[in-house]
Amino acid sequence: MNAKNRHMTLRRYPEGMPQEDDFALLEAPMPEVMDGAVLGRAMYLTVDPYIRARMSARFAEGYADRTALGEPIGGEAVYEVVQSRHRGFKEGDLFAAFGGWQEFCALPGEGLRRVDPALGAPAHHLGALGMPGLTAYAGLTRLADAKPGDAIFVSAALGGVGSVAGAIGRDMGCRMIGVSSSAEKCRYAVDSLGYHVCIDRTAPDFATQVSAACPHKIDVNFENVGGDIFWLALSHMKAQGRVVVCGLVSGYNDDAPPPGPDLTGVLLREIALKRLVVKGLMVADFWSLYPEFQAKVGALIRSGAFAPKVHVVEGIENAGRAMIDMLSGRSFGKTVVRVGRDPTLG
Amino acid sequence: MNAKNRHMTLRRYPEGMPQEDDFALLEAPMPEVMDGAVLGRAMYLTVDPYIRARMSARFAEGYADRTALGEPIGGEAVYEVVQSRHRGFKEGDLFAAFGGWQEFCALPGEGLRRVDPALGAPAHHLGALGMPGLTAYAGLTRLADAKPGDAIFVSAALGGVGSVAGAIGRDMGCRMIGVSSSAEKCRYAVDSLGYHVCIDRTAPDFATQVSAACPHKIDVNFENVGGDIFWLALSHMKAQGRVVVCGLVSGYNDDAPPPGPDLTGVLLREIALKRLVVKGLMVADFWSLYPEFQAKVGALIRSGAFAPKVHVVEGIENAGRAMIDMLSGRSFGKTVVRVGRDPTLG
Repeated sequence: MNAKNRHMTLRRYPEGMPQEDDFALLEAPMPEVMDGAVLGRAMYLTVDPYIRARMSARFAEGYADRTALGEPIGGEAVYEVVQSRHRGFKEGDLFAAFGGWQEFCALPGEGLRRVDPALGAPAHHLGALGMPGLTAYAGLTRLADAKPGDAIFVSAALGGVGSVAGAIGRDMGCRMIGVSSSAEKCRYAVDSLGYHVCIDRTAPDFATQVSAACPHKIDVNFENVGGDIFWLALSHMKAQGRVVVCGLVSGYNDDAPPPGPDLTGVLLREIALKRLVVKGLMVADFWSLYPEFQAKVGALIRSGAFAPKVHVVEGIENAGRAMIDMLSGRSFGKTVVRVGRDPTLG
Repeated sequence: MNAKNRHMTLRRYPEGMPQEDDFALLEAPMPEVMDGAVLGRAMYLTVDPYIRARMSARFAEGYADRTALGEPIGGEAVYEVVQSRHRGFKEGDLFAAFGGWQEFCALPGEGLRRVDPALGAPAHHLGALGMPGLTAYAGLTRLADAKPGDAIFVSAALGGVGSVAGAIGRDMGCRMIGVSSSAEKCRYAVDSLGYHVCIDRTAPDFATQVSAACPHKIDVNFENVGGDIFWLALSHMKAQGRVVVCGLVSGYNDDAPPPGPDLTGVLLREIALKRLVVKGLMVADFWSLYPEFQAKVGALIRSGAFAPKVHVVEGIENAGRAMIDMLSGRSFGKTVVRVGRDPTLG
């Protein structure tokens, strides 16, 4: 076993898009394993937009602690138990927890979320079968008031949340309209994620294609991005449509609100005129749905209806680069960083 | 009977706060009364913020036709039947309709909303017992998901909608927190409208008083104003609180959105972090609630629990001035313009 525990931290808070130089790999002593705790070796670290949000004073406020300089960057990971002082866990068991970007983590065994590889590959437990998937499931089944036949618009269709939204919405009988950042990703969204149509936001006629894809307008906008795409979706909302505000990744790199004019009044006016229902989504309200959600999405994966794509980056030392690629749309699929051996891959 | 029918129209579209000179009193021939129609003589014309909104290309779009130059300014009125060619109406009957700012109006009798003076004075049928009151009732009973004990914040507590919201919310067992534009109005809101507390927005320590009035934060913001007061209420919202977007009078005089920065992303972020539910309210969705609403509010008036205040301006020629006073907060109570004799006043 390592004598040292490497972790990825911030050297400084990024301004705008993070740079590799903002990150630093540090060594710390191995954690102590108290009575009732388990020591996990990280197999996969997640790389999600919320991790960037937590690097910003503006976005972290009121939401979670801002990532501290020098400490492991906060985020979920899948672990293999390498030492157990909790009678519910034995060596080789898998679990997921918010352990941050580090190689080893000691955590109380009580309440840890077990990872069942029979449901799907361990990396999926950070994506389609994990928190991003639960976010999509809770948003569509609990907040969106979606009925069969509803047109559901999903920005970032290839993202951790968006890719699962496609599969769940299709299974609910909805018409799924996605947006992604390349023609190749859009093909994948249609072929493997459940989207009926997916539109490349880099296409010169993007807005026209969105209009053509929504001839009867949008019943539900599942918002992951914010900014221009949010306004485009808003202009296509049906009266009494629903907006689920899940993420606003387009703004996470900005330390201050963009220049004006201030369109908040325009937004409120549209909400009134169209009698929209806009709901905020925080997945922490829905942990109790994990079993129901994993049963549903696990079945969709096993049936072949849903083939979530995972983008694996090797080595904790590359986690910063992985985040930059994810934020800039260069990665293809849910990004994870492989840190330790994945026993399910042999 | 008059040979001519006077109406108040716009000489030009107002820029910013309307000026008296933007309005013009014109004469038109008396309307023809077709078979099945009734001829009404206006007793009271309503003066409501939505009428200003309909003078603006920006606010009228997607909502209703913009008021046409030269035509009667659009708005509801209470009429006395002076000639009937519909078997359901006889001379002296009262009704309310969107006849606009004119002395006489001929309308099909089918579907006209009857005014029952036994429920309350005719002028109230444009306010507490009319569309503004129905707006408050629908918002609180159908959209706000309000439970006894909830703290409900109402900007423009003395307005046509806000004054009724106070009474209805109090009757529902909620804690009603109002905002108005003078200490005198605030006293009235507490003494006669049902508010537990009302805060003068011209007070130097206004924001501090709002914080003190909401020690447990706000469950429901019933938004009539927009702008700074909206943001102040937002900062006091409880997690999973509800915002009913009814009116945005603070912006109705603006032809363009205010300068930046653009805070729409900040608003969406707050909605997500606090898991708010924001709903748009258009009273036209709720006409079917008229009987239930009038029974409830009529009873509150008769019991003395609710004493809605009406600000009566005499003469159609003063309707423009009445609107300016209403928009600038100088009027006290729901503004109506008396045009014809009110038989209930003798």
